[in-house]
Amino acid sequence: MKKTYRAMQVTKPGFLELVDRQTPAPGAGEVLIAVEACGICGADTGDIEGADPALQPPRVPGHEVVGRIAAIGSGTPSIWKVGQRVGVGRLGGHCNECAQCRRGQFQLCQNQPFVGATCDGGYAEMMLARSTALVSIPDELNAEEAAPILCAGIATFNALKKSGAQAGDIVAVLGIGGLGHMALQYAYRMGFKVVAVGRGADIAEDALALGAHVYIDTHKEDAAARLQSMGGAQAIVTTISNPAAVSALVPGLAPQGRLVVLGAGKDPLPVSTGHLVVGERSVLGSVTGSPYESEKTLDFSVLAGIRPRIETMPLEMAFDAYKKMRSGDVKFRMVLTMKSE
Amino acid sequence: MKKTYRAMQVTKPGFLELVDRQTPAPGAGEVLIAVEACGICGADTGDIEGADPALQPPRVPGHEVVGRIAAIGSGTPSIWKVGQRVGVGRLGGHCNECAQCRRGQFQLCQNQPFVGATCDGGYAEMMLARSTALVSIPDELNAEEAAPILCAGIATFNALKKSGAQAGDIVAVLGIGGLGHMALQYAYRMGFKVVAVGRGADIAEDALALGAHVYIDTHKEDAAARLQSMGGAQAIVTTISNPAAVSALVPGLAPQGRLVVLGAGKDPLPVSTGHLVVGERSVLGSVTGSPYESEKTLDFSVLAGIRPRIETMPLEMAFDAYKKMRSGDVKFRMVLTMKSE
Amino acid sequence: MKKTYRAMQVTKPGFLELVDRQTPAPGAGEVLIAVEACGICGADTGDIEGADPALQPPRVPGHEVVGRIAAIGSGTPSIWKVGQRVGVGRLGGHCNECAQCRRGQFQLCQNQPFVGATCDGGYAEMMLARSTALVSIPDELNAEEAAPILCAGIATFNALKKSGAQAGDIVAVLGIGGLGHMALQYAYRMGFKVVAVGRGADIAEDALALGAHVYIDTHKEDAAARLQSMGGAQAIVTTISNPAAVSALVPGLAPQGRLVVLGAGKDPLPVSTGHLVVGERSVLGSVTGSPYESEKTLDFSVLAGIRPRIETMPLEMAFDAYKKMRSGDVKFRMVLTMKSE
Amino acid sequence: MKKTYRAMQVTKPGFLELVDRQTPAPGAGEVLIAVEACGICGADTGDIEGADPALQPPRVPGHEVVGRIAAIGSGTPSIWKVGQRVGVGRLGGHCNECAQCRRGQFQLCQNQPFVGATCDGGYAEMMLARSTALVSIPDELNAEEAAPILCAGIATFNALKKSGAQAGDIVAVLGIGGLGHMALQYAYRMGFKVVAVGRGADIAEDALALGAHVYIDTHKEDAAARLQSMGGAQAIVTTISNPAAVSALVPGLAPQGRLVVLGAGKDPLPVSTGHLVVGERSVLGSVTGSPYESEKTLDFSVLAGIRPRIETMPLEMAFDAYKKMRSGDVKFRMVLTMKSE
Repeated sequence: MKKTYRAMQVTKPGFLELVDRQTPAPGAGEVLIAVEACGICGADTGDIEGADPALQPPRVPGHEVVGRIAAIGSGTPSIWKVGQRVGVGRLGGHCNECAQCRRGQFQLCQNQPFVGATCDGGYAEMMLARSTALVSIPDELNAEEAAPILCAGIATFNALKKSGAQAGDIVAVLGIGGLGHMALQYAYRMGFKVVAVGRGADIAEDALALGAHVYIDTHKEDAAARLQSMGGAQAIVTTISNPAAVSALVPGLAPQGRLVVLGAGKDPLPVSTGHLVVGERSVLGSVTGSPYESEKTLDFSVLAGIRPRIETMPLEMAFDAYKKMRSGDVKFRMVLTMKSE
Repeated sequence: MKKTYRAMQVTKPGFLELVDRQTPAPGAGEVLIAVEACGICGADTGDIEGADPALQPPRVPGHEVVGRIAAIGSGTPSIWKVGQRVGVGRLGGHCNECAQCRRGQFQLCQNQPFVGATCDGGYAEMMLARSTALVSIPDELNAEEAAPILCAGIATFNALKKSGAQAGDIVAVLGIGGLGHMALQYAYRMGFKVVAVGRGADIAEDALALGAHVYIDTHKEDAAARLQSMGGAQAIVTTISNPAAVSALVPGLAPQGRLVVLGAGKDPLPVSTGHLVVGERSVLGSVTGSPYESEKTLDFSVLAGIRPRIETMPLEMAFDAYKKMRSGDVKFRMVLTMKSE
Repeated sequence: MKKTYRAMQVTKPGFLELVDRQTPAPGAGEVLIAVEACGICGADTGDIEGADPALQPPRVPGHEVVGRIAAIGSGTPSIWKVGQRVGVGRLGGHCNECAQCRRGQFQLCQNQPFVGATCDGGYAEMMLARSTALVSIPDELNAEEAAPILCAGIATFNALKKSGAQAGDIVAVLGIGGLGHMALQYAYRMGFKVVAVGRGADIAEDALALGAHVYIDTHKEDAAARLQSMGGAQAIVTTISNPAAVSALVPGLAPQGRLVVLGAGKDPLPVSTGHLVVGERSVLGSVTGSPYESEKTLDFSVLAGIRPRIETMPLEMAFDAYKKMRSGDVKFRMVLTMKSE
Repeated sequence: MKKTYRAMQVTKPGFLELVDRQTPAPGAGEVLIAVEACGICGADTGDIEGADPALQPPRVPGHEVVGRIAAIGSGTPSIWKVGQRVGVGRLGGHCNECAQCRRGQFQLCQNQPFVGATCDGGYAEMMLARSTALVSIPDELNAEEAAPILCAGIATFNALKKSGAQAGDIVAVLGIGGLGHMALQYAYRMGFKVVAVGRGADIAEDALALGAHVYIDTHKEDAAARLQSMGGAQAIVTTISNPAAVSALVPGLAPQGRLVVLGAGKDPLPVSTGHLVVGERSVLGSVTGSPYESEKTLDFSVLAGIRPRIETMPLEMAFDAYKKMRSGDVKFRMVLTMKSE
């Protein structure tokens, strides 16, 4: 193993710079990962540009990480071996001790780091990770296509599972970007009647190709009214956190329909209680999921032939890649790749 | 049967007057009920004072109605007999034809009247009702104590069932009035750790006597913080629709906790998406329930020895009774009684 | 309308004969259907050959019926019109009055006839039906392909929904006949990893073409062991009622897996309690479903491009068609067709 | 700490003898418990008299263990401290690595020992335990009354939660012994209409005092018929594993009712598929539960004032105590106590 590795770090908010770092030894319960690919998620914006005090620069962003185990610390479960292909998502490893862990709800662990935010992430050649965060990667997926599944994939697949919708029900996906384009594919293969809701006509063709049965352009029509004309959506999965856009869509829910919220926005979401009560509707938050659930998501992606649509750029161009993502020009996920040596 | 009956009707918004009306014959699928008691619900305010165009005065309010069947129209199921004790709640009878009825979700029927609002209710000696709205009343309950169970009772009992909370979980009830005082009793007997949340110290003793294990006075402490210090509420059932009061309590939810909203307010409820997502929390609307569910609520009240705490006044004093309810002086439910002859 | 119609009836157990019958007028709550197609289900065996005292010959079998409304009785919901395309399955129309109906669980109605068994069915040009049994048929489906969906389709689609399995889970289907071949198609489009379990190699190719990812030939290998080697089935849907065959497969369930039983056999199913308890497994019975659910099944079939594979024979050849079904030579559903005039 | 401790061990099947053993040091992830009390469960019969090859005598039985942590091995979570009051039930500690653990379903761990069977249990002054098996004991419960809650308590409380029954539903408990007498108390406080089913009149009074609303003596009447006359049981929790007795009761289930099986018997349970299918009934196995769930059970017992009814005998009389349990003379749980020094 080399003594140093390259990383793109946030030295001050808003900028990424290439640095050399000392290769660390994994501590107890940790592994060192030789990173092969790392997706750039919309949530990286907060980690790179945000002023969150939990973020203590210098920080390496990136929480859609795939690589191989390079070294293993003490006290690590025997299911993990050096050389094994693994991934890490946003949730940086549960503690196994808190109330939520003891309930088996690891994704709600109260002592877990958030990768790329409260611990260093995957815009780097090497990364430390808690072994409880590790996800096994199936052979059928290469690193670049597996990476986005660890956040954009699991977030939407789990949200669809929790939506309560059943095969044949109408499921609307709001926002057709990194998360949304995965949601459409999963929703189609889960047997839903899939409605993509986006802004503008440009995305329509892609949305239909990805699995949407119907595309609604909110620039042209009232999406809620359109959904009601179809009978109402049993579930709406929103990948965007703009309260006004989400609120506008909620009246499209069928009775007993469920809005599943994936992203935490700064401003509260205004919800009509009349709409909730009279139709017994609900609003539910969904956080990505546990490593076991990530593996289920990867397996389902293999089973159903679902892949993210990606563009790749090398690690050292991470800042350009990030800016391209921010500009909205990426279809649909930007993934950084690290040269193997 | 007498040719006329007395009713208290809203002739113009905000006033109730005593009138004599012709006794009608029940139409197809209807029954005529000789009313014995009718509760005064907080929701009557909208029916009496509101400017809802669906309300076409003259209108008789009242949707917690108990009486006996006086006459039966054609095409009425044979389970209903003249002389039988029956009740009617807010939902005025489902159509059996719309999509929600055909799904078996009668409470969501798209063609049902709302008793006391879009059809005449129970502030009267006689009342017509669709047979699909009828609830059988068990012998163990007299009319006055059964009446509030048909709205305040079922609304809270069903909300607790839908809350997802299990025996031993913390369940908070916000608002200790007509609905809340039923919620406390049900919650206690369902095995929850019951937290009553109210304004001021006056209600504390009653709340504890009704089944609360803990009373939180929002005038004195931050209810959400207190709930979090207890581990967080698995469910919060709110019987009030003041968005600010509800929003303030929501941070008291445990991870995967659920806020159940019973009343439709005019203003939207602002919900923090971060709170929802990171803890997988949810907000759920609950409407009262079907006649079958009302019977289950009555049966449970008998089984568990649960009764509303009521004050009674005769029908002709309905306006005074209503004003007393509005003043907040009633502990905990005002019920109108009709003289039997 | 003609004064008489032709029907194939069971005059004595085991035989079908062609008769002319008087065309009846529909009674209250009934409709008269001009039948266009009727599937031959394995359960018809009991109706044709059985000695069930509930069966009072002469009886017309057949409970996968599609046709058009020819006449409507009084008191029938306005959603049904003369000329409308409708279907009827096994459940002959719920009463709307019993406890199960008032709970909204129409499929469990305690007063419903069973079509082709306790009331006349669809091996005929005309058939009376309770309006509560009617299913609306979408334009996209012709009569012959819609008919089997009303029993074989809904039985398996609902079973899969009730199985608790989620996208990506392993779901095994035992028995690849009329029901099983629908189950495979639905299961595939619901996103399950589908395992077909059958006897012999002949059916393997069809099973894989219908959606199975894996075919297990019980003549060659231990199906339960094979399922366990894959991780265990989250659900097993059995379309056969041979207790020995079902029992042999149950050990293939994953922890918390569920066996869904569709058919009622004469002999009890022996279940290992150790297997149930230690793995928290369960066995669940599933009956076809309500008309609303049948419509959902038809809609899903249209959405997902799922059709039964059928052979057709004209009504007057019903006895030959039935015998062919009994011989096991039909792939996969025999449907009787009636000449339209 | 003393160098030796006393234990009652199975040296050969069917006999318990008092021995002195060397006090061990806890290994990695283990704790040493100074035992204060240990319940005698019906399942101990298999451990003491059985010929299970997994049982390698000498073996110390007992899996309802309460005591204090005397020493802690390396790598044990910081939530456990020397001197802390803890308990251990049947499940001897999950591995955190297998598929079921990674799903958060610790009770289904594929690598866990069974206390008193595959590892030494609590008929002793000292006992080693995996830290993942530890249950925190609330101050309100003394050791003797807490012990039976760790198996008889959690088994029945969890079974009732999984039964799907809701407040007001009829829940029958079959077998009024160590488990059954806890089930009655929990069921009452969860708001069910509780039916105790036992053999003979002797137990009737106790059953009613423990919370049963109705007692059915199977010596005098057909329990299934009686349940059906009441409307059918939504759930039947069986604490006995006699297939004939359980099968006889199953026809007492309401439509969609659920039989919950707690104990694994040698002989299979014969289940009528007709009964399952036509009424959509189910049979579900339930294993005790995780340490977190045990803590929930203890907390609920405190909240609701529920305690086992016990008799106690000192450790050295364990064989007499066991024989008394076997004779059926104990009301309702025998608990061994260890002298503290």
